[in-house]
Amino acid sequence: MKHPNYSDNFIYGAHSVEELMNDESKIKKIEKIYVDESKHKQYHSLLNKARLNKISVQYVPAVKLDKLVKNKKHQGIVVHLLDIEYYTISDILNRTTKKIELIVFLDRITDVRNFGSIARSAYALGADALLIPSKDSASINADAIKTSAGALIKIPVCKEPNILDTLQLLKNKGFQIIACHEKTSSTIDEINFTHPSVIILGSEHNGILKEYLKVCDAEAKIPMNRVFDSLNVAVSAGIVLYEVTRQKRKNKK
Amino acid sequence: MKHPNYSDNFIYGAHSVEELMNDESKIKKIEKIYVDESKHKQYHSLLNKARLNKISVQYVPAVKLDKLVKNKKHQGIVVHLLDIEYYTISDILNRTTKKIELIVFLDRITDVRNFGSIARSAYALGADALLIPSKDSASINADAIKTSAGALIKIPVCKEPNILDTLQLLKNKGFQIIACHEKTSSTIDEINFTHPSVIILGSEHNGILKEYLKVCDAEAKIPMNRVFDSLNVAVSAGIVLYEVTRQKRKNKK
Repeated sequence: MKHPNYSDNFIYGAHSVEELMNDESKIKKIEKIYVDESKHKQYHSLLNKARLNKISVQYVPAVKLDKLVKNKKHQGIVVHLLDIEYYTISDILNRTTKKIELIVFLDRITDVRNFGSIARSAYALGADALLIPSKDSASINADAIKTSAGALIKIPVCKEPNILDTLQLLKNKGFQIIACHEKTSSTIDEINFTHPSVIILGSEHNGILKEYLKVCDAEAKIPMNRVFDSLNVAVSAGIVLYEVTRQKRKNKK
Repeated sequence: MKHPNYSDNFIYGAHSVEELMNDESKIKKIEKIYVDESKHKQYHSLLNKARLNKISVQYVPAVKLDKLVKNKKHQGIVVHLLDIEYYTISDILNRTTKKIELIVFLDRITDVRNFGSIARSAYALGADALLIPSKDSASINADAIKTSAGALIKIPVCKEPNILDTLQLLKNKGFQIIACHEKTSSTIDEINFTHPSVIILGSEHNGILKEYLKVCDAEAKIPMNRVFDSLNVAVSAGIVLYEVTRQKRKNKK
């Protein structure tokens, strides 16, 4: 079988899914594997491979699979494939078409709507790429793409298993690493964002990992007028990216 | 009957609801009236009054009412009352405790999550009040309050039936009216926000009404780096409010 079966973004049937799982370029596009809960033993080795590749697996009744592929013969297994391709930081740094100057690193932001909203602002306000850890990130699903107004199809998303190494690599390439959170005294308008920068944003719940703060060149907060709960992370992202844009425009004048 | 029946935020029973509807100070706190669909004729005059006051009415099966008030005797009518009190612009201008310098007018923003998120940013970034039209606004329900992280309980929300008159009143009181949308060439960093200001934001879908643009002192956009769909309105609100904060802080230094 040369061509896997497609039904929208779903690939189904034992052979098609197996072929897909053996294609290294395709495996990273897998959003989720749905398996007939009564047939999971049959797909034991395939599901093991999925787990090794950190692919999400969901056990469902057969009728759910029937629905996903509009009653085609799925043999108890359906893969949801994304149009989105993930990159590595090296992929985008080695591109020669455009100089990379602004990267937004989202540290464990798992809320899909926040993730989509940040991608929308990042693309509109000129960020060159998003960086996310391989684990603990929102997956780029249909909801995320919708909330991003399609930006997630346009801005490269880099997935890296070792963020500390990646930040060090970026520092060596001349990027300053700026952690944006409220637990500091400097404000974002005190940072010179006209240099190539990596901006780190953490989730409202978890903040930014201490080991990332250690390698940062600076920490900065959004100045607030009232003692209050922090801002929503998607709003914060928009504000920091606006500040970068404002400084660069002012610098050009 | 002197005290209406309460069950959480629900008031129920013919007499209690009638009394509530006759209390001008309470009527504006009504979020919604739920009526047993088989009994709507019985409450004809009361529901007419609700319509005149632009209160939302929903016809539901009796079991829904049972559930709302935990099987208490509701007689086919339940009112959902809010803790939130709406103000008028005069209410807040006549307060002597704090000078009012920054008002955010939300022109027909009906998405509850956006509304809540804007309230959160507005409160944190120092706006003194939100202004909304009596019609066509998101209602301040439990979802909005949750998304606002509680800010909707802290920041006054002014509801006005005639926005043009209200804007004129604010102009007479020395406020500049700034419409923030993308259909203009000036950018928000070119506006002097250290003056008392009313910031107008429109919904992503509808934009800002032309008649409001006519009375504006200036229009300004958020500078974008890429030709793209506009930003999410809650993100835009955060960015504009940050720009105001930034300028005021700079001015103080």
